[in-house]
Amino acid sequence: MNLALLCRLLALVAILIGGFMALSLPWALPAFGGQWQYERDGFWGLLGAMAICFAVGAVLRLLGRKASGQLFRKEAMAVVGLSWVLATVLGAMPYLLSGTYRTAEARMSPVDAMFEAQSGFSTTGATVLTELEDAHFVPRCILFWRSSTHFLGGMGIIVLFVAILGQGSAGKALMRAEMPGPSHESGHARIQHTAWVLFLVYAGLNGLLTVLLLLENLSLFDALCHAFGTMATGGFSTYSDSIGHFATVPGCNGPLIEMTITLFMFLAGTNFMLLYALVIFRPKRLLADIEWRTYVTILAVVTVAVIGFGLAHGDFGQNGTARAGAEVDDEQPATAVDHERETEPVPEGDDKPSRDKDEPQSFLQAARYSLFQVVSIMTTTGFCSDDFDRWNSFSKGILLVLMFIGGCAGSTGGGLKVIRHILFAKTLRLEVEQAYHPSVVRPLRLGGQPIEAQILRKNILVYFGLILGIFAAAWIFTITVEPNSTWNDYGHKHEHKLIDAASCVAATLNNIGPGYGVIGATKNYTNFTAPSKLLFIWLMMLGRLELFVIIILFVPSFWRSP
Amino acid sequence: MNLALLCRLLALVAILIGGFMALSLPWALPAFGGQWQYERDGFWGLLGAMAICFAVGAVLRLLGRKASGQLFRKEAMAVVGLSWVLATVLGAMPYLLSGTYRTAEARMSPVDAMFEAQSGFSTTGATVLTELEDAHFVPRCILFWRSSTHFLGGMGIIVLFVAILGQGSAGKALMRAEMPGPSHESGHARIQHTAWVLFLVYAGLNGLLTVLLLLENLSLFDALCHAFGTMATGGFSTYSDSIGHFATVPGCNGPLIEMTITLFMFLAGTNFMLLYALVIFRPKRLLADIEWRTYVTILAVVTVAVIGFGLAHGDFGQNGTARAGAEVDDEQPATAVDHERETEPVPEGDDKPSRDKDEPQSFLQAARYSLFQVVSIMTTTGFCSDDFDRWNSFSKGILLVLMFIGGCAGSTGGGLKVIRHILFAKTLRLEVEQAYHPSVVRPLRLGGQPIEAQILRKNILVYFGLILGIFAAAWIFTITVEPNSTWNDYGHKHEHKLIDAASCVAATLNNIGPGYGVIGATKNYTNFTAPSKLLFIWLMMLGRLELFVIIILFVPSFWRSP
Repeated sequence: MNLALLCRLLALVAILIGGFMALSLPWALPAFGGQWQYERDGFWGLLGAMAICFAVGAVLRLLGRKASGQLFRKEAMAVVGLSWVLATVLGAMPYLLSGTYRTAEARMSPVDAMFEAQSGFSTTGATVLTELEDAHFVPRCILFWRSSTHFLGGMGIIVLFVAILGQGSAGKALMRAEMPGPSHESGHARIQHTAWVLFLVYAGLNGLLTVLLLLENLSLFDALCHAFGTMATGGFSTYSDSIGHFATVPGCNGPLIEMTITLFMFLAGTNFMLLYALVIFRPKRLLADIEWRTYVTILAVVTVAVIGFGLAHGDFGQNGTARAGAEVDDEQPATAVDHERETEPVPEGDDKPSRDKDEPQSFLQAARYSLFQVVSIMTTTGFCSDDFDRWNSFSKGILLVLMFIGGCAGSTGGGLKVIRHILFAKTLRLEVEQAYHPSVVRPLRLGGQPIEAQILRKNILVYFGLILGIFAAAWIFTITVEPNSTWNDYGHKHEHKLIDAASCVAATLNNIGPGYGVIGATKNYTNFTAPSKLLFIWLMMLGRLELFVIIILFVPSFWRSP
Repeated sequence: MNLALLCRLLALVAILIGGFMALSLPWALPAFGGQWQYERDGFWGLLGAMAICFAVGAVLRLLGRKASGQLFRKEAMAVVGLSWVLATVLGAMPYLLSGTYRTAEARMSPVDAMFEAQSGFSTTGATVLTELEDAHFVPRCILFWRSSTHFLGGMGIIVLFVAILGQGSAGKALMRAEMPGPSHESGHARIQHTAWVLFLVYAGLNGLLTVLLLLENLSLFDALCHAFGTMATGGFSTYSDSIGHFATVPGCNGPLIEMTITLFMFLAGTNFMLLYALVIFRPKRLLADIEWRTYVTILAVVTVAVIGFGLAHGDFGQNGTARAGAEVDDEQPATAVDHERETEPVPEGDDKPSRDKDEPQSFLQAARYSLFQVVSIMTTTGFCSDDFDRWNSFSKGILLVLMFIGGCAGSTGGGLKVIRHILFAKTLRLEVEQAYHPSVVRPLRLGGQPIEAQILRKNILVYFGLILGIFAAAWIFTITVEPNSTWNDYGHKHEHKLIDAASCVAATLNNIGPGYGVIGATKNYTNFTAPSKLLFIWLMMLGRLELFVIIILFVPSFWRSP
């Protein structure tokens, strides 16, 4: 292992993170709307954290001053894994040094701070902060740092994607499968070009969404934070009610904001190479892509099902967030139906027209909440507009399954990725056929193209196997170390521990954020004990880096062998 | 597809089942303790069912009269799959024709009857019958038929195991891996020999357990039924409280009966080839077997953990079954501690010695319930001696994981089998290593022996992949079709639907029987709707026949191709 080279590359990461922290400083200033008496600690905390980043960067640079030689596969993997570990520690510094409050009573511990940092970088969006809206507890500049970790993390994923593209690994086979166009060469120049293109698409969409949200009456601060959260499929909001908040703000058009964000979540879950094809006016590539078509189909089918079951069970707008949303939604506060009756002449009896009016309205409402939530979960963003924890069991169950599907390869979305599920299903189908036709060997086809069969098929199965093993082990760990009081002391029932813990593991491993029960749409991770939080930090990292580069960090022979 | 040959072989199955029904007839007679006024319907029902079996057998024999040619791989698979379908339908006849009651109010529907038959043949032990102890609702001869389906099913599994041994399939590679000894040839003679040996071990253990249970004061009827339930790892009892019942019967030594059954469940989960080695005084084979050692290790570790967590949470004896058991257990009804104080002189203060006495007693109690339940679940038997549904979340979670592990290959136990988990873990470890050492190809080793790597590794992964896919699909199906009223109307909470449904799917797919909530240790499957019951029938069959032979029955090209 070429440790000097490792240090040199990690130094870059530390300096990059320190540099990014500077962008959060202005929000502490009165000129940008900061109240200095609250922001002071945040400001100095950020400055301190920057100093640490640059110091760490300098030390690493010094250690790596004699670096020579090439970056081989093993070093590349180590750099990726370690840079995320480093980012977690450095990204936690602003929270710690500013003395940000986890709840109204307690400040963040080092574990809390690392959890929040990892959740940001991995674009999970799981939070331990409960008092987001009070600058006394969480300064605005810290809140901005929190959202900008999403932006950085999303960028890291894109860089990673390009790195995988450039390697002669199984990842390449995967990419080739769904990379449109005839050109498959991967010279150095082409990789650099690809990296720039993807970065520009990412940055451009962030900018576009910010502008749209500004036009929809959000402040610059909120617009930027929510654009970061959306395009990185992160999910950190600046409000405890998440996106549901805007429906309660006078002057904001809740449904319009939700639908804007839905569209951009959808784009963030799409392969960025295909978005680029769209930009250069080649939409056919997008429409011809099997993965994208499957992604759209799943979203459509599940949304329709969630609307249907939700209407049958009367799911929508049962709670605070949603009811508030529902009321403002139609710009008829409180007595929507009565109001309607007064303004419009009612030709027949009193009851019938009001019911007629009622039904399309609740259908629209159902469509609005369902579409938003399905897209938010499947793209692994994790924004909420309704308390889906109170929905019917079918909807909750299917959302839990969607968590494991995730976005398209080459997007900022997490989960297992749609393409892996397609290949998984095709592999299993072929294997069943081989059980009674052992002599027939058929190639795996994707969109008509045969795929180098054996290695890819095995890799897909191994990936699912690892996810299964990690999920089971993490689930047992969580229910073992987490005491019943984590449920009982905060108005939950420990009888729900098994399913709640499963949703915690699913939501962190797949980088979503919210789940059920204690971590439901209106709840957060604040009450978990430190061992569980450490586990979740590890799961978020595992999920984001597609398992391998994190797992191997824990294999002694990886470090020992030449 | 050689359909004539298929019919000819299926005819044998129908006649075998009809013949076995005759063995249940005597229990209706007063000479064997039957009360004729209750047994009459059962007796005629059984006779009618026998007539149907023989008629079906005759028709199939007629259709197959021109059968010729050899039994090829495809026909063999079709015969196995179809014979279990046929057995389900024919095995349901006695329940239907006798008009057995599902609850005190309702008779069994055709779906109920097929559920009970499939649960018996697949040695699952899941039941829809609630009034087991009242001959007015469930005649004794029908109850005996129910238990003897376990015996038949267990035998079928052993025959299947031999059939797999004799095939040049992946199953053979799996068997070879854990078949001890140097002789690997598999001529026709050797297969027949093996089949006889295994059958004799199975029948012998059934007989031995029956005798032991008789000596422990059970009636012949109960002894036979529980021996069938134990050795087939089935789990049908003749009492609603399962094995916990005997602790409440005066004259029966509850703990002794439980430990006897624990031992035999443990044996039933062991590879029968190894039990044969034990019989011919070669215990070294058993001790050297990797799978068996892993099986013992898992049982030991989990039992210790369940004892520890159970004591910490005060789990044991919380409910009817267990409390009753606990009281009789120490032969000190009701006021155990007080009684102790009276008989023994207390040297010091009043409190201390009674607590000292108390602790070892509750430890023994914990060990007794924990060991029984862990062995019962891991071997996929499903007997209960305590209401483990009320245990702490760790114990419930780990039992759910054990359900997927199951017994050893070549036993009557269900689940995925221990050997598959060993190979799964080893495969994943090798794959992680290959991620950073792509050029190194190491063979998979088991007990020092290298294993034909590629095909086996892929097959293991495919099996886990199929289980995962089936589990997820069945879970979504169950929560979708089963209304909340299945929970709410019977004293359960529909908020537990997600986890309860997961346990239903796990308990049927892995052939265990009981699970959590609506199907907890003291509950059963009676309140489910017909679609769910049909799904569970299918899952039990899938799990029992190791997926493939059932899945292919639903693949059109399996039937079409030559």
